[in-house]
Amino acid sequence: MALENLTPSDEQIKSAPNPNYLEGDYLKGVLEMTFRDGNPVAEKLVDEIFSSRQIDSIYLVGAGGSNSYIEPVKYILDKYCDLRIERINSTELETRRPKPVNEKAVVLLTSHNGETEDTVVAARWAKTTGAVTVALTSGHDSGLAKICDYLLPYSKELPGMPKTMIAYLFAAHFLKRLGNPVGAQLIADLEAMPAKLHDIKNAERERGMELARRYKDENIYYVLSSGILSALNYQYSICIFNEMLWLDASDIHSGEFRHGPFEVADPEMAYVFLMDNGENRKIDQRALKFTRRVTDKIITFDAGRYEDVSPLLSPFVIGVTWYWFAHTLSVLREHPLSVRRYMWKVDY
Amino acid sequence: MALENLTPSDEQIKSAPNPNYLEGDYLKGVLEMTFRDGNPVAEKLVDEIFSSRQIDSIYLVGAGGSNSYIEPVKYILDKYCDLRIERINSTELETRRPKPVNEKAVVLLTSHNGETEDTVVAARWAKTTGAVTVALTSGHDSGLAKICDYLLPYSKELPGMPKTMIAYLFAAHFLKRLGNPVGAQLIADLEAMPAKLHDIKNAERERGMELARRYKDENIYYVLSSGILSALNYQYSICIFNEMLWLDASDIHSGEFRHGPFEVADPEMAYVFLMDNGENRKIDQRALKFTRRVTDKIITFDAGRYEDVSPLLSPFVIGVTWYWFAHTLSVLREHPLSVRRYMWKVDY
Repeated sequence: MALENLTPSDEQIKSAPNPNYLEGDYLKGVLEMTFRDGNPVAEKLVDEIFSSRQIDSIYLVGAGGSNSYIEPVKYILDKYCDLRIERINSTELETRRPKPVNEKAVVLLTSHNGETEDTVVAARWAKTTGAVTVALTSGHDSGLAKICDYLLPYSKELPGMPKTMIAYLFAAHFLKRLGNPVGAQLIADLEAMPAKLHDIKNAERERGMELARRYKDENIYYVLSSGILSALNYQYSICIFNEMLWLDASDIHSGEFRHGPFEVADPEMAYVFLMDNGENRKIDQRALKFTRRVTDKIITFDAGRYEDVSPLLSPFVIGVTWYWFAHTLSVLREHPLSVRRYMWKVDY
Repeated sequence: MALENLTPSDEQIKSAPNPNYLEGDYLKGVLEMTFRDGNPVAEKLVDEIFSSRQIDSIYLVGAGGSNSYIEPVKYILDKYCDLRIERINSTELETRRPKPVNEKAVVLLTSHNGETEDTVVAARWAKTTGAVTVALTSGHDSGLAKICDYLLPYSKELPGMPKTMIAYLFAAHFLKRLGNPVGAQLIADLEAMPAKLHDIKNAERERGMELARRYKDENIYYVLSSGILSALNYQYSICIFNEMLWLDASDIHSGEFRHGPFEVADPEMAYVFLMDNGENRKIDQRALKFTRRVTDKIITFDAGRYEDVSPLLSPFVIGVTWYWFAHTLSVLREHPLSVRRYMWKVDY
């Protein structure tokens, strides 16, 4: 079958469902539930795994959005513990078969529905190595959950933030176990996050919508970030712009910008900056300062606007700001975020 | 000063120098010299470092092209040794300050001229940790060389492949020292590479030029690869397209393609596939197969065309094929690869 036959008509696109997860107190409710249900499970799981054997490395494995959502956990664990932490695409894990994936490794595999073929294949291989396998998924009876030794579950309500929160809880309980005070602090911060994020998403509403109105006609976006946000620009680029809005995009580490990518900047180009509120802020600011000399088309989503939120929680703050923008953009472009032409439809 | 005043005029752009490193036997000569001079230095340096202390991790540090050029070394060392290997952007090393960067770490920092500000700053910080620092550079008296404990030098002739070859020699001698037969084999393969690559670049000449003629008018390119080539699509995207040709581009891991980025594919879109000749080939092929159903605009640079070359050497093979394409594209677009508007000109 020719693939163009799979592309929905304009009418079908316009009439596709386009839920706005930020309306009312839906997000707050889901995140409160996620913390309440997930916190004891994460604690128990960390205890069981790390009391039963010596662990030298943790592999964080996923594909697409799930791959990028877990990068902040690498950032946090790299910063506060001595284990070897790797984040790797699911197919690449299975082809590369890293030597340290053995009895001394935890392999945490994530997929929202738990049926992502590439991740299921990766889990199957990881099992053969003797590594401890953990399924981070809302698919509690899924292929992934069935293969793995442990299940780190969350509800089906939302694909993004609950997964991130549970992954954070895994890292936090591990650090707490090591006696690092960052662990207990992170757990307390995560518990406070739903209410705090509720206020932030209300505060960001008008600004996110206004940015969408101003930039709705751009056809390519360069998305920059660094530090704990350095996989979120990737997610924004490949999931929001490419996958959901069918727009061109490229993600650039803001520390790499001056070493090549900035040569393409001109007054017509649109940039999205995800600003860190931690030690990488100076890198982002330097890139932003340059870009302002070239173009006025700059969208900033800035975790620094909320100084009472720990820089380790920046991905949550950025998440609500960009969702207002993305959702509004999809409404104005009459292209709901839920429409796909190839995903889940074509043999691959 | 307004930045537009820095952009050269059309006439200045057209008349800029645009050397073709692939003409005659220049490349062969440079690589022969690189191996001859670099091999004993790499061997001695590896001996000195690894006989003097316990090393647990190796950090590969650079910015832009230098950042991506060293990724294959992470791939090789991940595959054949147990050390923790990290590749990280220079600024991010200095802001993130990873815990394992200490007396038990080797930090290999690379910059072609050795004066890249971000990398010099990173080296200065690494020195304070007690880590062994190594400067991989052609700037033998540069800031970077002066800061670091060791110098892994190459000549100024070419920025790309000699650096890669020296980095490979570092990895190969380390593996040899560990008693892994891959080390000695890699050294032999690298010695044979200049002559072999000379033949390959002659064989690829017409095809590379023809591809440039066919695709000279594209304005955005999506560049895909995986495995040992998985930083080369990044390099192609940010260095060749963005920096040198001022064209839009985005780099996608071919294992991530189906998880979002492929939704943007349509018959008008141009794709560049860098095909692995090792275990990741199946991932690349799967992405290629899908893309062929959507568009005819597909450029493949395929290490699999040369089966007598070890898959570990694929980056060298891809390097010559793409250079014919890039150079010819720059001629046809009257935009020499040497022209910059911001780099080395603006405060940043």
